[in-house]
Amino acid sequence: MTRGSAGGGFSRRQLLIGGAAAAGAGAATALGAEAAWRAATGSEGSSATTVGDAVVPFHGEHQAGIETPAQAHALFVALDLHEAVDVAALRRLMRIVSDDAARLTRGEPALADSEPELALVPARLTVTFGFGSAFVARAGATASPTWLRPLPAFTVDRLQPAWSDGDLLIQLGADDPVTVAHAARMLLKDARAFGSVRWSQRGFRRAAGTEASGTTMRNLFGQVDGTVNPEPGSADFADVVWVGDGPRWLDGGTGMVLRRVAMDLDGWDRVDRPGREFAIGRRLDTGAPLTGEAERDDPDFEAVTELGFPVISEVSHLRRARSDDPRERILRRGYNYDDAPAGASVSDAGLIFVSYQADVDRQFVPIQRRLDEVDLLNQWTAPIGSAVFAIPPGCDEGGYIGETLV
Amino acid sequence: MTRGSAGGGFSRRQLLIGGAAAAGAGAATALGAEAAWRAATGSEGSSATTVGDAVVPFHGEHQAGIETPAQAHALFVALDLHEAVDVAALRRLMRIVSDDAARLTRGEPALADSEPELALVPARLTVTFGFGSAFVARAGATASPTWLRPLPAFTVDRLQPAWSDGDLLIQLGADDPVTVAHAARMLLKDARAFGSVRWSQRGFRRAAGTEASGTTMRNLFGQVDGTVNPEPGSADFADVVWVGDGPRWLDGGTGMVLRRVAMDLDGWDRVDRPGREFAIGRRLDTGAPLTGEAERDDPDFEAVTELGFPVISEVSHLRRARSDDPRERILRRGYNYDDAPAGASVSDAGLIFVSYQADVDRQFVPIQRRLDEVDLLNQWTAPIGSAVFAIPPGCDEGGYIGETLV
Ligand code: HEM
Ligand code: HEM
Repeated sequence: MTRGSAGGGFSRRQLLIGGAAAAGAGAATALGAEAAWRAATGSEGSSATTVGDAVVPFHGEHQAGIETPAQAHALFVALDLHEAVDVAALRRLMRIVSDDAARLTRGEPALADSEPELALVPARLTVTFGFGSAFVARAGATASPTWLRPLPAFTVDRLQPAWSDGDLLIQLGADDPVTVAHAARMLLKDARAFGSVRWSQRGFRRAAGTEASGTTMRNLFGQVDGTVNPEPGSADFADVVWVGDGPRWLDGGTGMVLRRVAMDLDGWDRVDRPGREFAIGRRLDTGAPLTGEAERDDPDFEAVTELGFPVISEVSHLRRARSDDPRERILRRGYNYDDAPAGASVSDAGLIFVSYQADVDRQFVPIQRRLDEVDLLNQWTAPIGSAVFAIPPGCDEGGYIGETLV
Repeated sequence: MTRGSAGGGFSRRQLLIGGAAAAGAGAATALGAEAAWRAATGSEGSSATTVGDAVVPFHGEHQAGIETPAQAHALFVALDLHEAVDVAALRRLMRIVSDDAARLTRGEPALADSEPELALVPARLTVTFGFGSAFVARAGATASPTWLRPLPAFTVDRLQPAWSDGDLLIQLGADDPVTVAHAARMLLKDARAFGSVRWSQRGFRRAAGTEASGTTMRNLFGQVDGTVNPEPGSADFADVVWVGDGPRWLDGGTGMVLRRVAMDLDGWDRVDRPGREFAIGRRLDTGAPLTGEAERDDPDFEAVTELGFPVISEVSHLRRARSDDPRERILRRGYNYDDAPAGASVSDAGLIFVSYQADVDRQFVPIQRRLDEVDLLNQWTAPIGSAVFAIPPGCDEGGYIGETLV
């Protein structure tokens, strides 16, 4: 994340506003605004100087928003396609929303943006599209990944249809909540002729500028959450995340699992700290494994207490989530949620668990199955929503997301 | 707002974590964490170096969160008091929540904080308490401001009880959403023995670090919103906001109006830019009055078009909201909201309109009445919630909010 004085970003926006204002008599159209933006900035490679100016490229081999260090705010929206939408319509839809996303992520208004002034703070905006099984079927694909279907049922599941499934996923992330709100609105306005919102989930992490970059997030249980994860940019990351041997259209894409997991904060708070640390197998203060000193120390599953019990319990979340099979690994990139509580409850909070993996069945499902069998954490968590999407590869300038499929 | 390198804040937290970790065998209690924090920072006056470290003092003549430049995130929660709560209980309640607020706003865990690690990023956290008429009655006050009651009915109102009224208001503001979530949880845990949540409204503005300080916010119509407002720190501000001649217990306090105003974004977007600017009387790009060049230019209500019509319409929001009576002024400090839309709608968005004024009846009501009579903006806005609170003065260290009343 790039940071610094507020000068650069402000002046760019001022230039835009000034330019647009000078150009016409108070009717700065979206087109005028965009032209002014181009004139003012000269090139698109200008270096970002504030949280607001930082741009994550939309185009590329892979879609942004996965390898991208997680932004402070995320919105996940799933659409159900209208009956009448055929292959040609899907192509039109993906062309339009890809164009919107390309512009908005640069900090430019979308075409015919009705509030162009709200578009000028990119704040690392990423827009990531995912296809549910119905989208792929509607596209007339001759091949679909076998894992593109609802997950098998787990005994811990308390799934609500209103939080589950969906045909098209739009994932938005940015360090600014107004940026997320505006981008979501533009995309949904353009998408609504093709489908309707099935669910919409808002998540958050610490704000930009509050923590040293690379700090692992904490969830609302106070746990350091996200320590063991493949390193962005590494070969290992590519192995875990990007599809190499699926259907052609998914090459360079990935599989996404989203689980809305309610967390019983009251129940959790009734447990003392040693009990909570026992449940997870890690310390709450540093996130270190109970056998180590620092967050990234390797856990020692052989270590035993004076009484001969394992220090890291065999039924702790850490132990159960970790596989001996190196293929059973995933990229976790979740977000906290904290919605207005209903009735007498003090909170409606949890984790929007999000993981990316090349093969959902081979990588994610065995982990979830083990956690379903036994995991001390299950006492305070319950999956209330679940969805699986195929995230197609990225596209180049002039292309669109999904072009390998429709 | 103070900004700079991420160094200072990170090291303070690292010190805390290191200190707590060194102090005990993995069970860093809330108390341990707090002691470590004090040891690590030495004094509480250490200067903030990141968005996360910035502290707004809780103690003082007035409550924080009103004259404070608006933070990026806000949460407004209204509680209904339980039947059994008497004066002594009210006193206990206010002592507890004031103590929580004093600690949390310093970036310290609350007493018996169950997730102390989440408390360490103050991010300009403010906690502001307000009393509804039932709270004041329960306190056995001999005097109450006449305006402390539901607003008179307006024809534009589409009020829902679920978004209206309430006995105790807790207003939270911070530049970090995790900070808001954690503070809200601690306060509500301590308050729930005394009352239950009636409503809870989450609002946002641009993130810290995205705009030059002093930039006026934009609402989700894209309008510059908040231009004409008393200047924090000025005598004028004090005149408009702080109570001087109300009941004694409210001296140095203020009156608060919160109106949840739904905004019809679709309807708004169907109007062209000149039409929208006509409705408000200001330009969308710069926020300047239609008769001026810059945001803070004075509007010229005498200026006419070639055809002899006023440039700033007599039924524009600007014209109707502005009074010729200098006493009819208010401090507006609202937030955008953008919740998950229900059914087929593309958005459930609007403005959490919040204003502070010494006398709600004399300052706010005449403005709202004029806007109710006629205001072009009414076509796209509808108040769906409404509440009035008396915000008592601040307190000194060792005191508590409400000590002048209970
Ligand atoms: C609310 C629900 C959950 C919470 C609060 C939670 C919390 C945590 C925490 C604190 C850690 C240790 C630090 C870290 O490496 O990130 C962890 C590790 C992990 N969790 Fe979860 N988790 C939840 C759900 C899940 C689910 C649904 C899965 C997958 C099915 C999962 C898979 C993992 C994996 C793979 C690890 C790393 C294990 C290793 O050390 O190799 N978690 N989780
Ligand atoms: C969703 C609802 C509303 C929207 C979108 C809105 C928007 C605006 C905008 C864009 C301005 C001009 C710039 C500025 O000075 O801030 C303004 C001014 C103002 N508004 Fe509103 N407003 C809303 C509701 C209200 C309500 C409910 C009140 C009070 C009853 C109010 C009172 C004022 C006042 C006093 C001014 C300043 C007028 C002056 O120039 O002296 N507004 N509003």
